[in-house]
Amino acid sequence: MLTFYYGRGTCAVATHLALEHTGAPYDAQRVDLKADQQRSPEYLKLNPKGRVPVLVTPQGVLTETPTLLLYVAQVHPQAGLAPLDDPFALARMNEFNSYLCSTVHVNHAHKGRGHRWVDAADTAAIEAMRRKVPQTMADSFALIEGGMLRGPWVLGDVFSTADYYLYTIASWLEGDGVDIARFPRVADHFARVGALPVTQRVLAAQAAD
Amino acid sequence: MLTFYYGRGTCAVATHLALEHTGAPYDAQRVDLKADQQRSPEYLKLNPKGRVPVLVTPQGVLTETPTLLLYVAQVHPQAGLAPLDDPFALARMNEFNSYLCSTVHVNHAHKGRGHRWVDAADTAAIEAMRRKVPQTMADSFALIEGGMLRGPWVLGDVFSTADYYLYTIASWLEGDGVDIARFPRVADHFARVGALPVTQRVLAAQAAD
Repeated sequence: MLTFYYGRGTCAVATHLALEHTGAPYDAQRVDLKADQQRSPEYLKLNPKGRVPVLVTPQGVLTETPTLLLYVAQVHPQAGLAPLDDPFALARMNEFNSYLCSTVHVNHAHKGRGHRWVDAADTAAIEAMRRKVPQTMADSFALIEGGMLRGPWVLGDVFSTADYYLYTIASWLEGDGVDIARFPRVADHFARVGALPVTQRVLAAQAAD
Repeated sequence: MLTFYYGRGTCAVATHLALEHTGAPYDAQRVDLKADQQRSPEYLKLNPKGRVPVLVTPQGVLTETPTLLLYVAQVHPQAGLAPLDDPFALARMNEFNSYLCSTVHVNHAHKGRGHRWVDAADTAAIEAMRRKVPQTMADSFALIEGGMLRGPWVLGDVFSTADYYLYTIASWLEGDGVDIARFPRVADHFARVGALPVTQRVLAAQAAD
């Protein structure tokens, strides 16, 4: 069985949704980010990067959301989480997930994690980063709205892990000062993924954990 | 045939090395980043993100380094660029590549691309970002040295795309103010990948282009 370490409301929601989608049992363990549990010696032994999510597999520990999404899709091929038999279509999924991870999530992180990239005492620089987040997030979502989200799902007619990941990151827009209504196709996608029973179950499980 | 758009000395070197490694023909097109060619209307039609690398395949355009590396490995399975038949080992490769893309490359980008995350006129904030790059790059390479690079190759005994990507990012350390000698295992890996005929051919081709 897979054991999954997540932080509530973090990007780990995407992998949580993919795991729930498979229908296979898994063990979800909440990491208390407010108590800095991800920096505890025990957790750092599991993941020296001190981040969530982490997936403990029978062969070892894995990290990085785009990687976990592809791995879950590959070990549960019957779940239909990725176009596994078509390298190009699979690359489209990975491309989308990589963009969310390395550009959109990074934009968002400049709101609350600016200390990663400047001296933590430099409040002016940290505030300068925070001020630009609404613009960088809106710019990224303009690209997504403008074509990266093919519709009705990210890859077009085929549902994939990219839909769960987009839903997860889109859920941050309001807190980042961006009105999702500016992006009607994203807003429609967000509502549809949010209404899925899988999504409802995961949100309820994280809230109750 | 694949057509590949790259910028000299950028992260696109990694995909260039993987393409050259396959032995299959490909067409490499240099994008003149100093002339901002990546923001030209023609290029933005190809890649609305305005970045390199881009890979034009018979089925369409692909972007994002970790995605291109996996795609090249999958369409050239005989090249031995990835452990394609083992989802866990493949995930280890993707995990490493995703870390380089979403954390280490992002650290590096705060040296010359700080304007992405703060107002371009805020020179104090941009300078604050630049100052921390030696530390964030060194912190990331300490993790790589400490275990992520298993040795002799990133995945252990098996060579993969992760070796070309690590080589590419490690080539930035000197410019980022980090002495690679602080990380002896990384330095040894860097020298070994740099000495490969594939690497020598790509560096010569980019310099002559």
